[in-house]
Amino acid sequence: MNYRLDIEYDGSRYEGWQRQNRTTNTIQGKIEEVLSKMCETPIEIDGAGRTDAGVHAKGQVANVHLETEKSCEEICEYLNHYLPEDIAVQCVSEAEPRFHSRLLAKEKIYQYRILTGGHKNVFERKYVYPLQETLDIKAMKKAAEKLVGTHDFKSFCSNKKMKKSTVRTIYEIKLEEENGEIRITYRGNGFLYNMVRILTGTLIEVGRGEKMAESIDGILEAKERSGAGFTVPARGLILSEVRY
Amino acid sequence: MNYRLDIEYDGSRYEGWQRQNRTTNTIQGKIEEVLSKMCETPIEIDGAGRTDAGVHAKGQVANVHLETEKSCEEICEYLNHYLPEDIAVQCVSEAEPRFHSRLLAKEKIYQYRILTGGHKNVFERKYVYPLQETLDIKAMKKAAEKLVGTHDFKSFCSNKKMKKSTVRTIYEIKLEEENGEIRITYRGNGFLYNMVRILTGTLIEVGRGEKMAESIDGILEAKERSGAGFTVPARGLILSEVRY
Repeated sequence: MNYRLDIEYDGSRYEGWQRQNRTTNTIQGKIEEVLSKMCETPIEIDGAGRTDAGVHAKGQVANVHLETEKSCEEICEYLNHYLPEDIAVQCVSEAEPRFHSRLLAKEKIYQYRILTGGHKNVFERKYVYPLQETLDIKAMKKAAEKLVGTHDFKSFCSNKKMKKSTVRTIYEIKLEEENGEIRITYRGNGFLYNMVRILTGTLIEVGRGEKMAESIDGILEAKERSGAGFTVPARGLILSEVRY
Repeated sequence: MNYRLDIEYDGSRYEGWQRQNRTTNTIQGKIEEVLSKMCETPIEIDGAGRTDAGVHAKGQVANVHLETEKSCEEICEYLNHYLPEDIAVQCVSEAEPRFHSRLLAKEKIYQYRILTGGHKNVFERKYVYPLQETLDIKAMKKAAEKLVGTHDFKSFCSNKKMKKSTVRTIYEIKLEEENGEIRITYRGNGFLYNMVRILTGTLIEVGRGEKMAESIDGILEAKERSGAGFTVPARGLILSEVRY
């Protein structure tokens, strides 16, 4: 039976989603460990988004093939009982045999939070980037509009050895400002390695006046990482939703 | 000049508000350390609520006498710059010479959060008590009504050596249930050592059916700690507000 898992995690303590080897501390590794114990056989799961070290998720989706007599509710309970406090499985459901969380994902939504006001946010400090600068949000919105659409995002990818296509479609970039915080929501068909964090860094540089909104076209055309902005810290980023 | 400080903290990492000696890790100690550095002389501050180890605050108030040429904004900036990420000073303001944060406090509001639903709350896990049981909130509300008023709360105090009066007035206990979570808000003129946590443990035992709401009067009259409920964990508790 193929199961779909809806997963939430605080990525602060982990080296990202993807299992690398036995010694690395990853979210995928933690979940596989519990499922393998439950089924008394090695289990591998597939996640929709390979979030980096320190990145969080509210709507990560994974799928896994299991032979078990447990119900979905029982699997979910078992997982939450044995998983650490900062990883939760919100729901386990039966999926069609051919359902694949990553290959069939149509849209992914990421959100990035930037503290711009002078205040500290004690209770959400692990989920925001404390930039503490005033940014020109109008200019950032103008630049964001130029990033929306189907483009070659090679300039916004940290992986220099990337051999596959770097063309992606961004459907929407929404900027909201409230209580000394800017939230940027990205909705697209997929994102390259570090792409959301480089997009955000570039928008921040536009907001500071270091880059012009008009320069975005040229940065995309150049296909050179050096033309884009800095990579913002992982802590402000969350994978909000995966749509099929 | 006498200054009022409005303070917020995540108490998870600390041994409570009150400085005990040089080696203990307390919130008062951390703030005094920064102010002493700023003024180049030992500084002592007074806090309104002596929160226990692991208890949080959104509206802690302290006052401090300082000789400095810095403005309130500059003192606030200096504090937030040197304080750790989990302690924030939201506001520094000039206070009347006789203002004393603890002695003049008229009301304190504490809130306790209990997770009752089956879900895990990953992002707020350090601020809720994951009880994961279904509770009879009607019975709890009935018991809460019996606790409101002026009573000798000796049965709800952990400090056996308490020689001062254990009479306190609770103005209001509000119970709210939402999204698999119960929030209990206590408003009173003051609270004894561990009192809010014992009140909450007692209400939980009523919610479980282990104690009857009608037994509250007898528990109060007995003036015996053993009659009241268990002490809930510190993590779910927050000092929300101090009123003058």
